[in-house]
Amino acid sequence: MWSYETTLQWTGANIGVERTTSRPDIIVCPPAEFGGKEDTWNPELMLVAAIESCMLLTSLSVASRQSIIFKGYTSKAVGRMAKTPEGLRFQDAVIDVTLTVAAGTDEAKAAQIVKTAEKYCPVSNAVNFPVTVNVHVQIE
Amino acid sequence: MWSYETTLQWTGANIGVERTTSRPDIIVCPPAEFGGKEDTWNPELMLVAAIESCMLLTSLSVASRQSIIFKGYTSKAVGRMAKTPEGLRFQDAVIDVTLTVAAGTDEAKAAQIVKTAEKYCPVSNAVNFPVTVNVHVQIE
Repeated sequence: MWSYETTLQWTGANIGVERTTSRPDIIVCPPAEFGGKEDTWNPELMLVAAIESCMLLTSLSVASRQSIIFKGYTSKAVGRMAKTPEGLRFQDAVIDVTLTVAAGTDEAKAAQIVKTAEKYCPVSNAVNFPVTVNVHVQIE
Repeated sequence: MWSYETTLQWTGANIGVERTTSRPDIIVCPPAEFGGKEDTWNPELMLVAAIESCMLLTSLSVASRQSIIFKGYTSKAVGRMAKTPEGLRFQDAVIDVTLTVAAGTDEAKAAQIVKTAEKYCPVSNAVNFPVTVNVHVQIE
């Protein structure tokens, strides 16, 4: 069992500071549509970023076990939230991954790495809304 | 419906950079126990921070509707992850909130605000593992 610990301090108005040992602080406020600011991270974006980055790191782990070498990996992630009778609820997230591999690499096998990572990624598997991962493979 | 969009760029080794319009970049790598570094955020910590900060912001929103004034709010959050037959999976999270209110404030009513926020917090309600929130109220 592994533990992940953070602390939070409210600094007034609708601003908080997330801290965890020896890492840079992250200032957090609500999304602009709920009274926050556009230049500050919010919990919704942090959730999407957590899922997106976990997918990269899990993909790298799977790739190294299968001896597939990535030349590049970028992604765009979008999470959608709606007002429901129970309150605001996430509905879904879509991650579009662009994977770059060297000429001669099996493109289908490369794409399959990200699909395998979907099964093992602990953060995307920690949410109760659907996460769709689309993979586009390009040759370097 | 509201959308939350981030982008990710792999920068080599097991490091990625999370970006979203006009906010500071967040560098991400795996936890140290999975080959990462202690001075860099990881997806697991970001998930815990997203839940913890959402609880603060939702509590502030509930408090303002009930005309309860917080003098201080700090919290500590711990998420636990275990190896399971399906891979690494989050098991639970516990958030310990310390709320400071002015003398004369109804302490039970103040604590209830955070409990009400649990029902509405969109991020804690987006995960499929139990999140326990403990509230300690202190007088300023």
